[in-house]
Amino acid sequence: MFENTNAKQAMKNPELIRFENDYTRGAHPEILQRIVETNEVQTPGYGTDEHCAAAADLIKRACDNSDIDVHFLVGGTQTNLTVITSILRPHEAVIAPTTGHIATSETGAIEATGHKVITIPTDIGKITAEQIKAVVTMPENVHAPKPGMIFLSQSTEFGGVYTKAELLEIKAVANKFDLPLFIDGARLGYAFASEDCDTTLADLAEICDVFYIGGTKVGALFGEAVVIVNEKLKRDFRYIMKQRGGLLAKGRLLGVQFEAFFKDGLYNRVAEHAVAMAMKIKAALDAKEITLVYPATTNQLFIKFNAKQYEALVERYVFAPWRVEGDNIIVRLCTDWSTPVEHVEQLIADIEAL
Amino acid sequence: MFENTNAKQAMKNPELIRFENDYTRGAHPEILQRIVETNEVQTPGYGTDEHCAAAADLIKRACDNSDIDVHFLVGGTQTNLTVITSILRPHEAVIAPTTGHIATSETGAIEATGHKVITIPTDIGKITAEQIKAVVTMPENVHAPKPGMIFLSQSTEFGGVYTKAELLEIKAVANKFDLPLFIDGARLGYAFASEDCDTTLADLAEICDVFYIGGTKVGALFGEAVVIVNEKLKRDFRYIMKQRGGLLAKGRLLGVQFEAFFKDGLYNRVAEHAVAMAMKIKAALDAKEITLVYPATTNQLFIKFNAKQYEALVERYVFAPWRVEGDNIIVRLCTDWSTPVEHVEQLIADIEAL
Amino acid sequence: MFENTNAKQAMKNPELIRFENDYTRGAHPEILQRIVETNEVQTPGYGTDEHCAAAADLIKRACDNSDIDVHFLVGGTQTNLTVITSILRPHEAVIAPTTGHIATSETGAIEATGHKVITIPTDIGKITAEQIKAVVTMPENVHAPKPGMIFLSQSTEFGGVYTKAELLEIKAVANKFDLPLFIDGARLGYAFASEDCDTTLADLAEICDVFYIGGTKVGALFGEAVVIVNEKLKRDFRYIMKQRGGLLAKGRLLGVQFEAFFKDGLYNRVAEHAVAMAMKIKAALDAKEITLVYPATTNQLFIKFNAKQYEALVERYVFAPWRVEGDNIIVRLCTDWSTPVEHVEQLIADIEAL
Amino acid sequence: MFENTNAKQAMKNPELIRFENDYTRGAHPEILQRIVETNEVQTPGYGTDEHCAAAADLIKRACDNSDIDVHFLVGGTQTNLTVITSILRPHEAVIAPTTGHIATSETGAIEATGHKVITIPTDIGKITAEQIKAVVTMPENVHAPKPGMIFLSQSTEFGGVYTKAELLEIKAVANKFDLPLFIDGARLGYAFASEDCDTTLADLAEICDVFYIGGTKVGALFGEAVVIVNEKLKRDFRYIMKQRGGLLAKGRLLGVQFEAFFKDGLYNRVAEHAVAMAMKIKAALDAKEITLVYPATTNQLFIKFNAKQYEALVERYVFAPWRVEGDNIIVRLCTDWSTPVEHVEQLIADIEAL
Repeated sequence: MFENTNAKQAMKNPELIRFENDYTRGAHPEILQRIVETNEVQTPGYGTDEHCAAAADLIKRACDNSDIDVHFLVGGTQTNLTVITSILRPHEAVIAPTTGHIATSETGAIEATGHKVITIPTDIGKITAEQIKAVVTMPENVHAPKPGMIFLSQSTEFGGVYTKAELLEIKAVANKFDLPLFIDGARLGYAFASEDCDTTLADLAEICDVFYIGGTKVGALFGEAVVIVNEKLKRDFRYIMKQRGGLLAKGRLLGVQFEAFFKDGLYNRVAEHAVAMAMKIKAALDAKEITLVYPATTNQLFIKFNAKQYEALVERYVFAPWRVEGDNIIVRLCTDWSTPVEHVEQLIADIEAL
Repeated sequence: MFENTNAKQAMKNPELIRFENDYTRGAHPEILQRIVETNEVQTPGYGTDEHCAAAADLIKRACDNSDIDVHFLVGGTQTNLTVITSILRPHEAVIAPTTGHIATSETGAIEATGHKVITIPTDIGKITAEQIKAVVTMPENVHAPKPGMIFLSQSTEFGGVYTKAELLEIKAVANKFDLPLFIDGARLGYAFASEDCDTTLADLAEICDVFYIGGTKVGALFGEAVVIVNEKLKRDFRYIMKQRGGLLAKGRLLGVQFEAFFKDGLYNRVAEHAVAMAMKIKAALDAKEITLVYPATTNQLFIKFNAKQYEALVERYVFAPWRVEGDNIIVRLCTDWSTPVEHVEQLIADIEAL
Repeated sequence: MFENTNAKQAMKNPELIRFENDYTRGAHPEILQRIVETNEVQTPGYGTDEHCAAAADLIKRACDNSDIDVHFLVGGTQTNLTVITSILRPHEAVIAPTTGHIATSETGAIEATGHKVITIPTDIGKITAEQIKAVVTMPENVHAPKPGMIFLSQSTEFGGVYTKAELLEIKAVANKFDLPLFIDGARLGYAFASEDCDTTLADLAEICDVFYIGGTKVGALFGEAVVIVNEKLKRDFRYIMKQRGGLLAKGRLLGVQFEAFFKDGLYNRVAEHAVAMAMKIKAALDAKEITLVYPATTNQLFIKFNAKQYEALVERYVFAPWRVEGDNIIVRLCTDWSTPVEHVEQLIADIEAL
Repeated sequence: MFENTNAKQAMKNPELIRFENDYTRGAHPEILQRIVETNEVQTPGYGTDEHCAAAADLIKRACDNSDIDVHFLVGGTQTNLTVITSILRPHEAVIAPTTGHIATSETGAIEATGHKVITIPTDIGKITAEQIKAVVTMPENVHAPKPGMIFLSQSTEFGGVYTKAELLEIKAVANKFDLPLFIDGARLGYAFASEDCDTTLADLAEICDVFYIGGTKVGALFGEAVVIVNEKLKRDFRYIMKQRGGLLAKGRLLGVQFEAFFKDGLYNRVAEHAVAMAMKIKAALDAKEITLVYPATTNQLFIKFNAKQYEALVERYVFAPWRVEGDNIIVRLCTDWSTPVEHVEQLIADIEAL
C-alpha cells in the first residue's frame, strides 16, 4: 500500500528475514536454470520465438482451450494498463473494487490512459454481481463515464478468493450488459492453492474475457501471461503492447519462464509451498489468539499485532506495515516460492514466545 | 524497421546464424552469473535495493558527476515514453530526426502520451544545430504545438555518431531556447567504441539534460539506465515510471546488471568486441566492393547486396531486410557481445566466395 | 445529475414552465443586444480583438488586480479540463469534493486528460482545509497519484457557499503544500448574491491561483472567463485552449458578453434577481413546511416533495429530479436571470394550494 | 497558418478592410435574427431541444438520408478531435494531407487524444486514392501505428476541391482496407459553390463515414454539424462530445442556426455570395497578371504580390500573410457571407491602380 519504511531500516540490517512481500528474492531455481541453459540460443525478438510459442501452447493446454491468445508482459501494472486501454473506448470506465490494484497501487496508470476507475466498496477486495449490477443499471447519463468493463483480482489484494459460483454470477451480469470481464491474476497461483478456491485455469478460460497468470509474485524473475479469450478483444493486442512499452526485445525470456512454469506443474508447486508455509504461520497465530483481519487462505496474512508484539518481531523480521488501529498495528506477511521452512519455524518459535 | 520476415523463415532452420539485430541471445555471461549469484538474497522492491544504489554510484563515478539521478527501466520504448512524458507540458512537442526511434519504431508511443513528434529530415539519423534552430525560431503560433525538448540517438538508428563539437552546437541551441536535450543511448556503448566518437559518459553528463545508457542491445538481459542531469527534471520521476508500468518489482535485477557493467569496464569491453567484429566484416565487404549505404563505424552495417549475393548468403545467415532498391536489397547486419569470432570468420569466407 | 426525463415529457408540452436548470433560455437582453450591435464590426479572430481586451480590462478592475491574465472559453467542462491539464504533471491528481462537477458531471473529462480526481466526501459540495490536509499529508508513496492541485466550486453544485474564512484556511493548506487552488465559478454570481457569502472578486483574486467567472449559467449565451492569478500558471495557456478545442474563432463574442457583464454591474444584477426569486419560493416552501435538503441561499433549491405534491406540480412545472427517498422525491429548482416574477408568483400560489 | 501580425497592426486602424479570413464579422443577419426571436423560449439543455431536432431533420432531408445521426458542436478543432477520438483505437493513426487542418493548425489536438497523424505530401491539400493505398499496404508492422481512418477537407485549406470521382476512388480504398473516411467540411459551403465541385450533400452522405458541415466560416456565429453515416460509428457519440467539452449547455443555439441555414437554402446562398465576390477579385488579379498560387474557385485566394504591390494594398486592407518567396509575399484573401460588394469594388479599383 505504501513504500515500506520497515524496508529502509532493513537495508541497514541484512540479517533481517523479509516477509514483507512475495518478490524479495530472484526466481525459482528451475526457472533461473532454464534462462541460463538457453542463454546462448539465438532467437528472433519481441516474443516471436519458439519459447514463447511453446509456452503459449502449454498454457492453452492448461486452460483446455486452443482458441485463446496468449501474450507475455513484464509486470502487473504494465499488464493492467495495456489490457484495459486495449478494450475501452474513450468515454468508458472500468469497474473495480475500491481495493483493486488499479485503484490503489498503480499511480493512476489507468487514468493516464484516459479512463476513470469506478470503484465499488469492499473490505477484502471482493465485489459481488449484485453490486456491479447496481452500478450498470443506473440511468443512462451522458454526463458520466459509461461502465465499459469489469476488473477483479483472484486472489485479491487482501487475500480474498472468489468461488466459481461467485464468478459465474458476475459473468452473468457482465454478459447481460456486454461488459468484458478481466481478472488480474498477479497472485493467481496462490488462489489455486487456497482451500477456498474451486476454480481452475480452464474455468477462468470459460468465465473471463481476459485474464492474466501472474509470474512475478509466484516465482518468476518477472513476467505475466495474458490470456485473451474473447475473440473481439484479440485484434492488434501486440500493437498496444508495443505502444505502451511492454514488448520485451528479448521476449524469449518470458517464454522460457512460462515454459518452465507449465511444463510439469511447477506453477502450482511453487504456490502450494507458499500457501503451506502461510498456513503454518496462521496456525501459530491462531494458537496465540492473534487476530488475522482478512481471509487467510492464500500466501498473504494480515495480522493485527499489539505494539509490544510488533516491536519484538521487527527485531528479526520485516513485514509490510498496513495501518495503525489505536495501539495495534496491522501488517501484511507474505510467503512465496522462496520462503525457507527454517525461517517459518523460527518465526513460529518467536510467535510462541511473544 | 519492419518485422523480420527472414526471421520467420529462420525459425524453421535453427542452424542459421543470426545477424539481424543485437538482441538475439540472452545476457553476457558475467551478467548472468551475477543474477544467479544474487538470486537468493532478499532485497526490498521497486529499485530501492542495494544493488540499484551501488549501480547508480558506479554510473555517477563513470559520469564524473555525483549530482545526477540514475533510474533503471526495462526497455527502450518504455524509457523514451517515460522520460518524454515527464518533461513536456501538454501542448509541447519533441523535436526528433525523421529516423528517430520515437518517430518510426514505437507504435506512436509518444503520441499516446499526448505529444507530437516534430521531425527533422535526415538520412543517417543525425540532425544539426542549424536544423533545430530553424524549427524553434518559427514565429510564435498558438495553432501549432510548441517545441519543448530535443531527442537524439547516439549512435543513431543508422549507425551515425555525433561528435562532441556537434553535440555542443546542439546544446547551445537547446540552452538558448530552453529546450531540454535528451539522448537515447540504446546503442551508446557501440558509439563509444566507434572510431568516429570523441565523447565520453562524462561529456554526455555535461551536455545532456537527460540521457540513457542502453543495456538491452549491449549485452544485458534487459535494462536501460536513465541519467537525469538537469535538476529541474528530477522531481517525481519514479512516480511517472510507476504510472507507465516501468517500475520493476524485482528492481534489483536491473541494479545487478548495471553493477556488472560498470564495476570494471564490462560495458565498454562488450561494445568493443562487437564493433571489432563489425569492422572485420566491413573490411571483407570493402574488399569485395560491396556498398555500405550508411556510416559503418559501430556495430551496425547497412549493406547493399545484389539479388544473387543476397540469395547466397541467406542460405546460412539471417539479416534484417531494410529496403529494396531496384535489383538490390539493403539489409542491416548487427554484431553484439555474443557474436562468436568463428561466425564472423565463416561469414567473411562466404563473402569472399561471392 | 442525470439527463432530465421530466424534460423529455416537457418537450411535448411547451406550456410547462421550466425551473430545471439555469440555462433554459438564451441570453440576458442587454447581452444579446450588444451581440447584435457589434455584429458587423470586423475584428481579428481567436480572442485577439478589442472586445476581449476591453472585457479583460473590466475584469481586472473588478478584481482590483492588473496582474491577472484573463481568457475566455465557451463552457464549463471545457474550462475545467483546460485549466486542470494546463497545471498538472502526468502523475499528479486533482483533489475535489465527491460532489464536484469534475467528479460527477463531466463524463470523465479530467481522467481523459490523464489525471485522477481524488475525491473528499461531502454532502453540500464544500470540503474543509482539514480534510484536504489529511489527504496531502499521507505518506509519500510512488504507487499512488500525487495530489497536484485543489478544485472547489463557489457556489457548489448543491448551493453551498464558502466563507472567506473557510477559503483562507484552505489557501493556507494549499500554500503550505504547494498546491494551486482552482475555483470553478460556474455559478459565482449566485454565490456573490447569497446572504452566506462574504467574498468578492477581489478576494478570489487574492486567494485563488486560478478561478473562473461563469457566464453560461448567469445569463450569457455562453462563456466563462478564466482568471489566472499565479504567475507560474500563465505561460502558454492559449496553446492549451487551442489544443483542447476551446479557442473560439469569433472570440469577440465572448469579449462582447463579458464587457456587457462588467461595464456597469450587470453580472451582479442578474444574479441578484435570480437569488431574490429563489428566496421568494423558499419562503413559500418554508411556510408549507416543505423541506429544503441543502443550503438554500443561492439560485438553487433542493426540495423534498412527497409524491402527491410532486405529481401536482409537474402538471405545470419542470424540475430536475435528483433522487428518490422512500415515497419522497428530491428535485432541484433553479431560478436565473430570465425567471419572470409572474412565474414565481404562480408557483408560489400553487405551492400554497398543495 | 500563423497568428496574423497584419491583424495586430489593423487593431490600431479599424478603418482597414479585413480580408484575412472568413470569420471577421458575427453571423449572417437571418441567423442572428432567429437567435433573437427564440431567445425567450425555454428549452431543455445539451442539444435535446426541438430546434436541434428540427435542424437535424432538415439536414437529413438535405442529405437525402434519414438514417444518419446529426450532432452539433461549437468549433472545428473541437469537432475534429471529438470525431477522431470517437473512432480510433489507441494504436491507430489518422491519415491526412500534410496541409490538413489537424496536421498544421490544431496545436497537436489529435496527438493530445493519443493518436498519430500520418501525413501524405500535397501542395493544395488534396491527396489521392493511390497515395492512401501506398500507406495502407505497407507491410504489417507492430512497431508503427496502424492506419485507422482517413481525414480529408472539402474544400481544402488551400482552396482545393475534390471531384466526386476522386472521392469515390478514395472511398474504394477506404472500404477495401476498412478505414472510415471523415471529411472536414469547415468550408463545405464554399466547395459546393465552386465551379470545380460536382458533389452534393447527398453524395457526401453516401461516400463518407462521417463528415461535418461547417457553420463558423460560412456565416454562423459559431457551430459545426457532424453527420455520422456509418452505423458502427454512431454509438455513444454524445458521451465523447461531453467528455471533450463539446456539449453546449444552451445547445439550442446550434439548432437554431442550422435550422436557419437549411430551411430555405441560406447555407448555399451565403457561400455563393462569397465565391462570387472572390471570383470578381480573381478576375481583376488575372487582368493584372498577378499570380494566384493555388486553385482559386472557392472563397480563398492565395495571391503572390511583389513588395510594392503588397505595401500599397496593406495601407487599406488586411490579408493573411502566408509566406515570403524572395521579394514576393504570398497572402491569403478570404471572402465570406459578409463581404460587401462595395468593398470588393474598392479593392478591384485599387488592384487596377497598382
